[in-house]
Amino acid sequence: MFKTEIGATGGEVGYLRPETAQAMFLNYKRGIIHAREKLPFALVQCSKVARNEISPRRGMLRLREFTIMELELFFDPENPKCPWYDDVKDTVMRLYNEEMVEKGVEEPLVLTVEEAVNKKLVLTEWQGYFMGLSQRFIEALGVPVENQRFRAHLPDERAHYSAQTYDHEVKLETWGWTEASGCAYRTNFDLSNHMEASGQNMEVRREDGTRYVPHVVEPSYGLDRLMYITMENSYERRDKRNIMHIPKELAPYQVAVFPIVKKDGIAEKAEEIRDLLQSKGFWVTYDTGGSIGRRYARVDEIGTPLAVAIDYETMEGDILTIRDRDSGEQVKLSVDDLPSALDAYYKGGKTFLELGEKVVRE
Amino acid sequence: MFKTEIGATGGEVGYLRPETAQAMFLNYKRGIIHAREKLPFALVQCSKVARNEISPRRGMLRLREFTIMELELFFDPENPKCPWYDDVKDTVMRLYNEEMVEKGVEEPLVLTVEEAVNKKLVLTEWQGYFMGLSQRFIEALGVPVENQRFRAHLPDERAHYSAQTYDHEVKLETWGWTEASGCAYRTNFDLSNHMEASGQNMEVRREDGTRYVPHVVEPSYGLDRLMYITMENSYERRDKRNIMHIPKELAPYQVAVFPIVKKDGIAEKAEEIRDLLQSKGFWVTYDTGGSIGRRYARVDEIGTPLAVAIDYETMEGDILTIRDRDSGEQVKLSVDDLPSALDAYYKGGKTFLELGEKVVRE
Repeated sequence: MFKTEIGATGGEVGYLRPETAQAMFLNYKRGIIHAREKLPFALVQCSKVARNEISPRRGMLRLREFTIMELELFFDPENPKCPWYDDVKDTVMRLYNEEMVEKGVEEPLVLTVEEAVNKKLVLTEWQGYFMGLSQRFIEALGVPVENQRFRAHLPDERAHYSAQTYDHEVKLETWGWTEASGCAYRTNFDLSNHMEASGQNMEVRREDGTRYVPHVVEPSYGLDRLMYITMENSYERRDKRNIMHIPKELAPYQVAVFPIVKKDGIAEKAEEIRDLLQSKGFWVTYDTGGSIGRRYARVDEIGTPLAVAIDYETMEGDILTIRDRDSGEQVKLSVDDLPSALDAYYKGGKTFLELGEKVVRE
Repeated sequence: MFKTEIGATGGEVGYLRPETAQAMFLNYKRGIIHAREKLPFALVQCSKVARNEISPRRGMLRLREFTIMELELFFDPENPKCPWYDDVKDTVMRLYNEEMVEKGVEEPLVLTVEEAVNKKLVLTEWQGYFMGLSQRFIEALGVPVENQRFRAHLPDERAHYSAQTYDHEVKLETWGWTEASGCAYRTNFDLSNHMEASGQNMEVRREDGTRYVPHVVEPSYGLDRLMYITMENSYERRDKRNIMHIPKELAPYQVAVFPIVKKDGIAEKAEEIRDLLQSKGFWVTYDTGGSIGRRYARVDEIGTPLAVAIDYETMEGDILTIRDRDSGEQVKLSVDDLPSALDAYYKGGKTFLELGEKVVRE
């Protein structure tokens, strides 16, 4: 950890936090009042942390300052059901349990979340739920399931607070298997210790009058690392051009607007369409510089999923062309239909070719 | 500043950054390449900073760790026009220039942004633009214009890098006039110094071939402080109840859904409506506990702008009631119209009473 001194005289020693988890355990009492003492409930935090790494390396993978996203899920150990378990229980994972890691087994177990929980390879439904969800999340970032696996920590590498920890690993072209996330079953270790040290009661009352200290499952992510994983998986080099196939929800711009030429009122028409889209809340970039091919290449490189071209057909018949970053395909549609088409693409689950009439290339 | 030591042996000294501005000057070369060397352009950052305050106090107003939002606007001093100046130039400000602050004048100048710039009370259009915009922004957070003012720093209190700084102050019930933001004209001080120390050329070329180091105007906000200002201005104590009139764009939940009773399928109907709204992307809270009045009071207290009640009329005729946090007024509309009504309220600029048929109270 990084150590510093606080205040004018510097008598007080402080440390930069290496994680956010303890801040959430400190706020647990407020959280449970807010949740009206009903479990399960969760606290979540996303913020900067700092670790005095001896050798920071591998670009964004091992940083001395990074952004952590952590969730603490509090539940009753006698009622450990996850209400959304059914949504993920059939998800097929590649898993190495402690025994397999210990023995250096190369082939993972391939099994569903439910099988892993039933065989007690994963200790609680809540861990199973977050592991299944995590796999889907990383898949949505562009990493195929076969490049993902879960690997148990051995008892001697596991943190003292954890009864079981699975690392969620991703296979990178650059660095091989890399931790993307960890899911720890912290039991009631933290709350019991805070209770003992502070004298504050952390217990919750069941309906039958019995009391317990909640157990905790904690999924934890490094945001910078997720960004790197996403970018590596999005990057393609094709015909001396760079294409960033970043998921459309994460693209810095949703749509580019290009007038095919600047003359004959085409630039003014394009500016009008840019302003219309911006007023509807879309993230729009506008470019008039260089050939249309060069402009397409520029937005492909920064991952803009769609580019709209305004040409003479737009001036005459209010028809424009949208080009898809990933396939290079184009569709035509009317100017009036553009905002709802973009909405359907970004929020309504429509695919690119459903947005208009496909342009058949000769 | 907070001092620390970096690395295994601890030989290297580091400091926690007290602002983000210098990080942006360090990234200026990348920024200007990205902007294809066209000015004006801006870099913006929002992140944690730390200052070793001798006496942190006044709750969220003076913190040792806080979140800063800063923008560096780079422009050509020979072409200092702001393209959006017309949008704000007629904004009327209350202003104390250096001379007035020096003499302790009590009554502010009341004048437009344009008048302040023309009289050279504000040195550049860009400062005028950001000051006018800042006033509108803070007004949108709930602070009336008469509780806002701009106060110049005297030369001896101004930071060494600044040719002119105006604090944007807000009058708080709790703490009196309080700085909400600062707008500094940093000239080319930072880039010239980085250029000298690093040997890197920071100049930009004009079309006529001449070269210059860009000038900088910097608006800067403390996010935590803005949150406090917003909350103080939103808070009302009425008939022993707390109401948080937080701007609807900032409310933690957009809409609450309440079944008036749990029996006769009303709770199931309410859950259906909750799920529908969540699937459309609204931030929904759901509550079945206690009387409807108590549930309204709970969501008023945390600033939820709208609450939907599901009752026997919903079961029979698909009609529900929405209640407005601020006025307590209610309107009726059909279940099918609810999602588009919420969209119109949150994005389309419709007022509450335009969402349905007003319920006349007896």
